[in-house]
Amino acid sequence: MARNTKVDADHNAPAVTQILAKFVAGHPSKGWSNAVEHEAHRTFLNWVGCAVGAANHESAQAALDAVKELEPAPQASILGRAEKVDMASAALVNGITSHTFDFDDTHLKTIIHPAGPVASALLAMAEREGSSGRQLIDSLVLGIDVSCRMGNCIYPEHYDRGWHITGSTGMLGAAAGCARLLGLDEKKTQMALGIAASQPIGMREQFGTMTKPFHPGGAARAGLTSALLARHGFTASAKALEAPRGFAQVVSPKHDWSEITGDLGSRFEISFNTYKPFACGIVIHPTIDAATQLRAQGVTADNVDRVELKVHSLVLELTGRKEPQDGLQGKFSVYHGFAAGLIFGQAGEGEYDDHIVTREDMVALRRKVVATVDDTIDEASADVTAVLKDGRRVHVFVEHAIGSLERPLTDAQLEAKFHSLADPVIGAGKAAKLIEACWNVAKAHDVRGLTALARP
Amino acid sequence: MARNTKVDADHNAPAVTQILAKFVAGHPSKGWSNAVEHEAHRTFLNWVGCAVGAANHESAQAALDAVKELEPAPQASILGRAEKVDMASAALVNGITSHTFDFDDTHLKTIIHPAGPVASALLAMAEREGSSGRQLIDSLVLGIDVSCRMGNCIYPEHYDRGWHITGSTGMLGAAAGCARLLGLDEKKTQMALGIAASQPIGMREQFGTMTKPFHPGGAARAGLTSALLARHGFTASAKALEAPRGFAQVVSPKHDWSEITGDLGSRFEISFNTYKPFACGIVIHPTIDAATQLRAQGVTADNVDRVELKVHSLVLELTGRKEPQDGLQGKFSVYHGFAAGLIFGQAGEGEYDDHIVTREDMVALRRKVVATVDDTIDEASADVTAVLKDGRRVHVFVEHAIGSLERPLTDAQLEAKFHSLADPVIGAGKAAKLIEACWNVAKAHDVRGLTALARP
Repeated sequence: MARNTKVDADHNAPAVTQILAKFVAGHPSKGWSNAVEHEAHRTFLNWVGCAVGAANHESAQAALDAVKELEPAPQASILGRAEKVDMASAALVNGITSHTFDFDDTHLKTIIHPAGPVASALLAMAEREGSSGRQLIDSLVLGIDVSCRMGNCIYPEHYDRGWHITGSTGMLGAAAGCARLLGLDEKKTQMALGIAASQPIGMREQFGTMTKPFHPGGAARAGLTSALLARHGFTASAKALEAPRGFAQVVSPKHDWSEITGDLGSRFEISFNTYKPFACGIVIHPTIDAATQLRAQGVTADNVDRVELKVHSLVLELTGRKEPQDGLQGKFSVYHGFAAGLIFGQAGEGEYDDHIVTREDMVALRRKVVATVDDTIDEASADVTAVLKDGRRVHVFVEHAIGSLERPLTDAQLEAKFHSLADPVIGAGKAAKLIEACWNVAKAHDVRGLTALARP
Repeated sequence: MARNTKVDADHNAPAVTQILAKFVAGHPSKGWSNAVEHEAHRTFLNWVGCAVGAANHESAQAALDAVKELEPAPQASILGRAEKVDMASAALVNGITSHTFDFDDTHLKTIIHPAGPVASALLAMAEREGSSGRQLIDSLVLGIDVSCRMGNCIYPEHYDRGWHITGSTGMLGAAAGCARLLGLDEKKTQMALGIAASQPIGMREQFGTMTKPFHPGGAARAGLTSALLARHGFTASAKALEAPRGFAQVVSPKHDWSEITGDLGSRFEISFNTYKPFACGIVIHPTIDAATQLRAQGVTADNVDRVELKVHSLVLELTGRKEPQDGLQGKFSVYHGFAAGLIFGQAGEGEYDDHIVTREDMVALRRKVVATVDDTIDEASADVTAVLKDGRRVHVFVEHAIGSLERPLTDAQLEAKFHSLADPVIGAGKAAKLIEACWNVAKAHDVRGLTALARP
């Protein structure tokens, strides 16, 4: 009977659950280069800024209202708010807020947003446990390594099947990070990974709704509780990741195990993390970058007749909304991104306000954009030609957008982005102190000083 | 580029998220036959017994210890224990305990254990909300209908891919039931289903570990929190179940939408629920039943030379452990099941104690069993021949085991099973009162009287 045979099952996978558990439990503190260490701080800083920035968003309010029905103990902070809740709920809500503006970090090889699930779980648990900043950063590097390596292993087929890979690998990174933070041994770390393996979260159909940012939040909570369960002796399959009916083979037809085992402990995936300058999906960035370059060359909404935009098919598949009706839909519109870049020269959270998305000049400019698919163009690039009313053609080709690995944001640009997010919520003065606390977190005896600064 | 095309995507699915939401929010209270109403009570009674019975299992203890780290508010009961925790955590722990002994109910068409996720979420929420028993039973029937209909839609391909279907559809039933219990309108119920759709839980690789019973528990918690989120305005895709990158199409290559829409409101899946007489996977039951019949015909461990067991391939695939080392592994051994049936004439939780599984006579008898695959035999049947030392052959063919739809447990047998589970935990007197409270729950103004009886 066909249904009893999994024809493509791989019975010879290496023992990656055990391999990762050993790595997470045993790798030395700060066992990496200064560059990796610095990237960990950039990742953390950027994540805090995103979470603080969205602290008062309606999705944060709805999530917090739901969590409050559980009458949670005040164990951990909601960044950017006065409320404290239990650490699992804090992981959930901070995971939601940090991804709400779609402004968080991106591991470009997999389109994973790694900090959301991992940092949200870790900071909540560290605050409750009174962990040191060193423990936090160690756990962050190792946790992100786990989720991104699993992402590498199953991407792109896993994503193509419809999974939102941030939430469907993030619970592994959160579980690994929390296991490390709790000081679990190799065996219990393996159980934490195993328990988390049963809880992938997120389908791409949710894009454009609050459930998209729920995915990293849910993954954070799942990973944190998996580590707690393992701590207390809860068991799972020791081969939960690699077995024929384990995580990787269930959620993806592709599994390249060498992506998990190769250079483990010497290559760190956080090295390939990037930070967005624009508050929308990464595939729109080259187009917005091109728009700002056209703007610098004198192209305006008034003098342009039409815009010929050539992009990879993935761009239109993910962000092809021609007529977005509100800010959230605007995030999934390459047309809106282009218009914001040309009219405002930027695309921060402000350019995704509902009233900007529906503004007459934005609607009109979006309608001038004709997007066509050209799969010879990389999904990280965009080819844009503005045809002016006077007949002139202004052409820009963006190979790598600002914020990419090739053209990363500087630390100063990261700080400016942080201020743009955090100042409206906690004020510029406190934001500056919080930035300082993030850069110096690894020296802190206790992370609670930092979380206190994130309160308005 | 192939990765951007989901060739088997179904863009013409009916709007089942909305259809189910309307059904759950709008179907009249007790809008079904007396037979359905009675089956709902049998389902509930059996679930309470299973949860109470495993209240002191080490997995319950580990889960409760983990949950306690969240310092939960005492909102809802852990059945069979003195502790109360927040309702989401109670849903988690009761979901775990009710499936710990693998002794709960089974919707045979899909092998879903429907009560675990749905009843665990509902009773916890009903206790916190002070809901009536009528509300509880209504929500139970409707919630189970949702998860089992989705199961019918995607089974067996979904299960074959490696998902533990109880947890990977149960969050939908729990969300639907909780939405009904909270009195959410159609739109918010649709959002609750949508949020839950992103959270399928459970891979079959976990069978034989504590994470298997975690699956219904996690699904209960996920469904309950999804309903809470929706109550407070959290949004999800309105097509989260049926869209090309929504739940059903992501987790299964097969989706028969008519299983969801057909006879909705007139056929209730709870009608097809069954209750196990033996504390193990349902596919072992025909074999155990055969063993008890051989026993009645005078076959013993001493006079038997070997046993020829012919079963469907699924039986050995799921429960082919020849040499189980402890009680949990014993649950996945058709060999152990046979030996228990022949030596003890039964296979309750007591026959899965570690010391029974490793007992010398059990080990010896298991080794006499030669199992062969015969896919002309239905997976609900077993063909067993005992070859005696004197050369005689005693043959038994079990078409439908006791506990099947064709040979259901009587109410009295269900009560006896309940006592066998609950008496050691809360005592026979309290167990009798609790049974009475379950049969009469629909008349109760407040479910708290019932939960109080489940305390030791």
